[in-house]
Amino acid sequence: MRVLVLGGDGFCGWPTSLHLSARGHDVTIIDNFARRRADVELGAESLTPIRPLEERLRAWTEVSGRRVGFQELDVARDPEGLTRALARLRPDTIVHFAEQRAAPYSMKSAAHKRYTVDNNTSATHNLLSAMVEACPDAHLVHLGTMGVYGYGKTKGMPIPEGYLPARLRSGGMEAEAEILYPADPGSVYHMTKCLDQLLFYFYAKNDGLRVTDLHQGVVWGTSTPETDLDERLVNRFDYDGDYGTVLNRFLMQAAIGHPLTVHGTGGQTRAFIHIRDTVRCVELAALTPPRRGERVRILNQMTETHRVRDLARMVSAMTGVPVQPMGNPRKEAPENDLVVVNDTLLHLGLKPTSLSDGLMEEVIRVAQRHAHRCDRSKIACTSRWTATDQPAEATPQARAG
Amino acid sequence: MRVLVLGGDGFCGWPTSLHLSARGHDVTIIDNFARRRADVELGAESLTPIRPLEERLRAWTEVSGRRVGFQELDVARDPEGLTRALARLRPDTIVHFAEQRAAPYSMKSAAHKRYTVDNNTSATHNLLSAMVEACPDAHLVHLGTMGVYGYGKTKGMPIPEGYLPARLRSGGMEAEAEILYPADPGSVYHMTKCLDQLLFYFYAKNDGLRVTDLHQGVVWGTSTPETDLDERLVNRFDYDGDYGTVLNRFLMQAAIGHPLTVHGTGGQTRAFIHIRDTVRCVELAALTPPRRGERVRILNQMTETHRVRDLARMVSAMTGVPVQPMGNPRKEAPENDLVVVNDTLLHLGLKPTSLSDGLMEEVIRVAQRHAHRCDRSKIACTSRWTATDQPAEATPQARAG
Repeated sequence: MRVLVLGGDGFCGWPTSLHLSARGHDVTIIDNFARRRADVELGAESLTPIRPLEERLRAWTEVSGRRVGFQELDVARDPEGLTRALARLRPDTIVHFAEQRAAPYSMKSAAHKRYTVDNNTSATHNLLSAMVEACPDAHLVHLGTMGVYGYGKTKGMPIPEGYLPARLRSGGMEAEAEILYPADPGSVYHMTKCLDQLLFYFYAKNDGLRVTDLHQGVVWGTSTPETDLDERLVNRFDYDGDYGTVLNRFLMQAAIGHPLTVHGTGGQTRAFIHIRDTVRCVELAALTPPRRGERVRILNQMTETHRVRDLARMVSAMTGVPVQPMGNPRKEAPENDLVVVNDTLLHLGLKPTSLSDGLMEEVIRVAQRHAHRCDRSKIACTSRWTATDQPAEATPQARAG
Repeated sequence: MRVLVLGGDGFCGWPTSLHLSARGHDVTIIDNFARRRADVELGAESLTPIRPLEERLRAWTEVSGRRVGFQELDVARDPEGLTRALARLRPDTIVHFAEQRAAPYSMKSAAHKRYTVDNNTSATHNLLSAMVEACPDAHLVHLGTMGVYGYGKTKGMPIPEGYLPARLRSGGMEAEAEILYPADPGSVYHMTKCLDQLLFYFYAKNDGLRVTDLHQGVVWGTSTPETDLDERLVNRFDYDGDYGTVLNRFLMQAAIGHPLTVHGTGGQTRAFIHIRDTVRCVELAALTPPRRGERVRILNQMTETHRVRDLARMVSAMTGVPVQPMGNPRKEAPENDLVVVNDTLLHLGLKPTSLSDGLMEEVIRVAQRHAHRCDRSKIACTSRWTATDQPAEATPQARAG
């Protein structure tokens, strides 16, 4: 396949680009380095010392003998350039990671909310409208999120893969319909992924575009077999309060002896997937495109669910580092169940990497190796979800205890 | 009430601003003149000779003794300016018409699609994020569209006011939920109004913003008691293939003896409302805001439904002008039923203006009076919905007949 990876310099995009290249596909990355600029803005850095993209790409060619192409382009702001790139590269598959992907970042201020909405919506829509013009047969594989489903709306019912049958009622009449799972986003970031769903729906219906939307759980882990090949290929490891994701933050906190910061009761159940599985899922999805005119294919890209406090206890038991309850900056139910259908990717051949496979220890080792690069002041989540909320602080009980 | 009308120079915005002012509210218009610029771009013009906004506003003060304020501002591109305007004006109600509102225009090209998505999404989201900062207690009244419902999804079931009860099924389990009516937009323009719904949903849930979304049918008529007071207050009358709406186009075509252009079989059933009722509905909605923390209130703003070919026959019978079948540029079912619940506005006191009230003749008289301003070359709808579609042309049968 000729594959274009939008956002191919990021946390998921980089290892996916390497994996697809290693598997023999012809890969070109498009990126505008927005993620690296967010680091500069936040005064934060990946715990792992990631190299400039140019160096990464040179190293990959040295190590693998394969070439990954690159074009610097802002998908959200340069639709004409994107259209020209699509016409020139004629991709079979376009993997779309080119969105602002952190919920806390999206809630930091009115300007961050606007950046997230404007960037993500324009990026996705520019891509769809450009595909109609330049490559209507290409297959778009988009990284969505389990967060579009919200949590608990169907109270313990399994979360289906995007659609579910429903009996609708109005004015004394009833009708049966297969509907998109009702959207219930918990942050501006998650909201943009719900907007994306409607954009995909329209372009699949109106123009017959082929779209797979991967509703991904929380990613953990940092390295893949490809990024492990050379230290210059190292992937990002975010631990800060904006971009760090929950399990990786616990593992990193354990590595440096920082109390494990659990927001709220820790009763939130989340879906998880290791970054090794992310890159495999993207290839599995890319190799099995829907036909033109078919509805958007939605896959749940996750392998297991865990309650946040159970994860914290597990990491605490492994490492002896204590748990520190914090206020919860998010507006969400304190406790939720989560049962997720992920049949399609399993059926396509995914062999799930599980928390019990020893990779948590690997993440801790990586974190320990780079512990000297950690800035402890960046660990707290300072975003507030509403104007009257306070930033997450250690709860009084915990401070006293 | 202190009312801010975003897009107050447009087809619905101008008569709404005058109506609210006449009713004693303190009105300020914000507009960036995008609609007038679209005329320049398309080489089209309102059939009625609308005056520059400054002249309109002077005339209104002369005629009514009341003052309507104005600030030129691009809501989609100047969020900081918008936030300052909200903080300064401290509106009780914000009426939001500041979106590109024509489906054919939204489908003209990739650039028009992008303008419509970027402009409409940023306008609505800039407003919501600015309200959180500057006036979280204000009530947002938004002009949505009946088009968010699509047509026929519930096969003859009445279209409820935004929400409907549903029995959801997944994995052998069932759950009862009140869901947003499943979105099924028929154009990029309609899609943006579906995106707006999700933006409202999130900000009502997260920040307790008070939002009323008016899902309006096709507007017909051109004048209201206020715009009739002085010729300098005349409202727009769009008849071109992009911005003209179906019934007004028939009436104007009849006035100049142009065959009545029916797209497809004319079996599409649409919801209609006279512009006089639009302005009343907006006030009725503005006077009855939801409480903070309540869900978004959705009202269907329409008064009757008609099949397009029945309207054409009615106008043809009135005037003797023949019907001309054309290809249908839209991707839609050739025939659909449409039953719409509009209880809330009736309950709030709306007395519907009906097609049988003699106002069709008034529209024809207005059109005849300005017939010399008509550019017949602008009547055809030249937009294509997909890359392979042809523009709407007279059907061979009709050309032969």
